Amino acid sequence: MSRFRIAVLASGAGTNLQAILDRVHGRDRIEVAAVASNKPDAPALERARRAGVQTRVFEQAAHPDRVARDAAIADWLDGEGVDLVALAGYMELLSPQFVSRFRGRIINVHPALLPSFPGLDPIGRALDHGVAVTGVTVHFVDEGVDSGPIILQRAIEVPYTRDRSQLEEEIHRVEHELLPEAIRMIAAGAVSVDTANPRLVHVGHDRNG
Amino acid sequence: MSRFRIAVLASGAGTNLQAILDRVHGRDRIEVAAVASNKPDAPALERARRAGVQTRVFEQAAHPDRVARDAAIADWLDGEGVDLVALAGYMELLSPQFVSRFRGRIINVHPALLPSFPGLDPIGRALDHGVAVTGVTVHFVDEGVDSGPIILQRAIEVPYTRDRSQLEEEIHRVEHELLPEAIRMIAAGAVSVDTANPRLVHVGHDRNG
Repeated sequence: MSRFRIAVLASGAGTNLQAILDRVHGRDRIEVAAVASNKPDAPALERARRAGVQTRVFEQAAHPDRVARDAAIADWLDGEGVDLVALAGYMELLSPQFVSRFRGRIINVHPALLPSFPGLDPIGRALDHGVAVTGVTVHFVDEGVDSGPIILQRAIEVPYTRDRSQLEEEIHRVEHELLPEAIRMIAAGAVSVDTANPRLVHVGHDRNG
Repeated sequence: MSRFRIAVLASGAGTNLQAILDRVHGRDRIEVAAVASNKPDAPALERARRAGVQTRVFEQAAHPDRVARDAAIADWLDGEGVDLVALAGYMELLSPQFVSRFRGRIINVHPALLPSFPGLDPIGRALDHGVAVTGVTVHFVDEGVDSGPIILQRAIEVPYTRDRSQLEEEIHRVEHELLPEAIRMIAAGAVSVDTANPRLVHVGHDRNG
């Protein structure tokens, strides 16, 4: 049977990439086939190399504009026969052209219960807003900012102390579970978008689970 | 020791009022002292009467405008020495003058995890948006629409079927727990607003619990 090939885009430490490498890479026919970053010094790249996954850097400065840079990424991923693109701490907005080429095949993990707190610093903004419950969302990427159809969400109680580092730790722990879980379910064919309402994602049981 | 006197404003069936009557009225020195409605035929009024609680109806048609109607409600509640006003399915926006007179002493229960889905039909809008997690919020009322400082929140998973009546039932069950719990904690002096940031509500342990 053919492999389910994932690409991961990351800009930073790559802890979500590490969770994918540890939890789904090489299992259930899932393979992390490519890791791309916009930052040549992103620690995520080193994590990929240690796992034997090929990497490429797409610096903005090397391309005339964002559309051209994203086209270069898309060309590489298409050439590698990638089935799914997972954003794991990728700090750039993808061009509409990229989203269109991989329509319904790009997912992102966001550290809030969308539609609350889309965009930058959702953890800090949730704390400033005084919420008692926040969480993590895995969603398909569309042309908007964290606005695509929701695949999985998990709630997290804000600690009584409202300590940011404590909340961050808990959110990251949940991200590291939820993003691999979403990948596993998509690879298993257990995730589909409603034909009548493209906002609604149907998530069945993981046939490989 | 003196009683902690609550007023409840309700427009409809009054199931949240019933939860307050069943769970906190007459306990821990808490007394539901008055129930007001904008609807003369609200079943909530009959629930109050059955519990021996005085009621009054404030129909919009009997007053020149909303400010005058709300002033009549406020005069009644002030005369009754009310410590806290709980909105329980009250389908009118309170005037800024009312909010100002009872600043920090009005609470509302909202069937969503604010700041997601403020305003009308939050359950339907959450389902249409395709969220996987929603919930219930109890918050202080300010001049905005469901925008005041959050006291308590509880998350609820949307059922796999996305069946509206099933979700509503679960949300109402949680509302009936969370609103009385907030009242108990406020009456016990366990709820305070942060002096530096009025968005932040500190909720301690119920001393009477």
